[in-house]
Amino acid sequence: MSRSKALLAELFAPVAGDLERMRGVLTDELGDSSPVVSDMLDHVARFRGKELRGALVLLAGEATGNATDEHPKIAAIVEMIHLATLVHDDILDGAEVRRRVACVNQRWNNQVAVLLGDYLYARAFARSTELSSRLTSRLLAETTKVICVGEIEQSTARYDFDMTQERYEELIGGKTASLYAAACELGARYPGGNDEVGAGMRRVGYDLGLAFQIVDDCLDLTGTQEAVGKTVGCDVEDGKVTLPVLHVYASANEDLRGRIRDVFTLPGLEGRAGVLRETVDLEPGLAFAMDRARSLVKSALDELGQLPESPARASVERVCGFVLDRSY
Amino acid sequence: MSRSKALLAELFAPVAGDLERMRGVLTDELGDSSPVVSDMLDHVARFRGKELRGALVLLAGEATGNATDEHPKIAAIVEMIHLATLVHDDILDGAEVRRRVACVNQRWNNQVAVLLGDYLYARAFARSTELSSRLTSRLLAETTKVICVGEIEQSTARYDFDMTQERYEELIGGKTASLYAAACELGARYPGGNDEVGAGMRRVGYDLGLAFQIVDDCLDLTGTQEAVGKTVGCDVEDGKVTLPVLHVYASANEDLRGRIRDVFTLPGLEGRAGVLRETVDLEPGLAFAMDRARSLVKSALDELGQLPESPARASVERVCGFVLDRSY
Repeated sequence: MSRSKALLAELFAPVAGDLERMRGVLTDELGDSSPVVSDMLDHVARFRGKELRGALVLLAGEATGNATDEHPKIAAIVEMIHLATLVHDDILDGAEVRRRVACVNQRWNNQVAVLLGDYLYARAFARSTELSSRLTSRLLAETTKVICVGEIEQSTARYDFDMTQERYEELIGGKTASLYAAACELGARYPGGNDEVGAGMRRVGYDLGLAFQIVDDCLDLTGTQEAVGKTVGCDVEDGKVTLPVLHVYASANEDLRGRIRDVFTLPGLEGRAGVLRETVDLEPGLAFAMDRARSLVKSALDELGQLPESPARASVERVCGFVLDRSY
Repeated sequence: MSRSKALLAELFAPVAGDLERMRGVLTDELGDSSPVVSDMLDHVARFRGKELRGALVLLAGEATGNATDEHPKIAAIVEMIHLATLVHDDILDGAEVRRRVACVNQRWNNQVAVLLGDYLYARAFARSTELSSRLTSRLLAETTKVICVGEIEQSTARYDFDMTQERYEELIGGKTASLYAAACELGARYPGGNDEVGAGMRRVGYDLGLAFQIVDDCLDLTGTQEAVGKTVGCDVEDGKVTLPVLHVYASANEDLRGRIRDVFTLPGLEGRAGVLRETVDLEPGLAFAMDRARSLVKSALDELGQLPESPARASVERVCGFVLDRSY
């Protein structure tokens, strides 16, 4: 087991049994009677990464005393939706490597990647309709809609260097934090009732998800493909102006602003993220972004403080720390 | 109103009121609080075509005495799923014109087309979770999965000139007939019970859907873009070997077989469907395929004969005729 896997296993220890159950469901779900589809799903299975979202369903259930026999299945459904977004994301930003495994659209083609993502979404929804309560179907269908709107709006906001921080957080809130929020809410509230605790855990998930994406956006600027495990520098290539860059741009003079825009837009430029690092000192932007991520995590920790102390609560608190410190 | 619209309006007369209700729901659903998404949905709304699938939900409900207040909403959800498949289909086969309106991926880009299709699926599922019974969510999630498997398998079966007719019908059964079957079953069976009638109407929908796709595949070989309202000749361009071609190929000698394969595969060939028509007499294949479509429609009509006579049953019967005779 790699060092990072061992760390995560330790973080998730209070729900180790249910996590294994979740993985069992996921493994079953990543098979199909069609050999062609099954072969593709085997490939997708290798994208299975940190499983943070699924683990949060289970940890939020434990930490709020709300765990049920159905939680591992809900966790697996959340992970399937996440996998579907990854498969479709690979079409979106032309990423060439995802978790060190060739993307679906590199190994097959865009056609198949679109259909396979659709299949994963449909399968996740199909499984959610088998649960005893409709809450999961409702919340996850709504969340998927919100994820799409966030992604579409971010896609149409490319090269917008004047975006406010508020707007940036709205976009990443839709595309990323919404699924963290849903994972925590479902854990704390499924099959229904428990509304106040559910709303509190939803806020924890949302803040944690925002922090996760801000750190992701920093790693995309500074990380190496080897450490992060997926193509980095994609945001600059795709014209996505993320918080660190927005901050640097806002405080730059006209000349520097022009040079930043050039790095994003000049045709034929290779390795734009590297060129950007050479063109401008990103440190103040990265420091600002990481401060914001820390402050979001602090909000999450304050909210978690409302729950009684427990190993599961302590785990979620450590997940918060992991999200800030991770280099992958 | 165009002649074809007038014909369809007449066909659907027994459910005219509910069809208007369905269109009202659909119009509401094709809006969003995000102006960007709303603008894109306006564009997608123009793809709304014959609305056969939605109408079949309503007609099956009427014809089986099973219509409820929720049927128009179910019909709208079925149409939304169909729209989602169209949006993603445009990515798949690089079609340039869909119902005489630029495709989403031509007007924006593949990114946005993928996300917008995902959004439509998610919205359809979200709406289905609001219905009083879970049957719609269950059946349509399962159906969407089957559609994806059919499309994936057809995509991986490209250039397979030795495909059996049985296999071809399995593929189009998944990608097309399954949604017709679900529409008819939901109409006849929602919110639950009525199992035998539901199974009968499911068979009607399945056979009708197969016939629809076989006719579609014939029109793709013989129609003009002007009449059909979407890019034709796509199947040959994409390497999809459909029933008429399979039939001609099976009875061709080695020399002709080689020439048929060349039309599909030689690089740089323009207008492959036209070249195919010049290379080989497609008539026997088209006649064979239309015979098969007629025989499927006959099965559907026989099954419909089990229902008591009614204006709605007569409408479904006329829809069967329309599917065979249509030139668009």
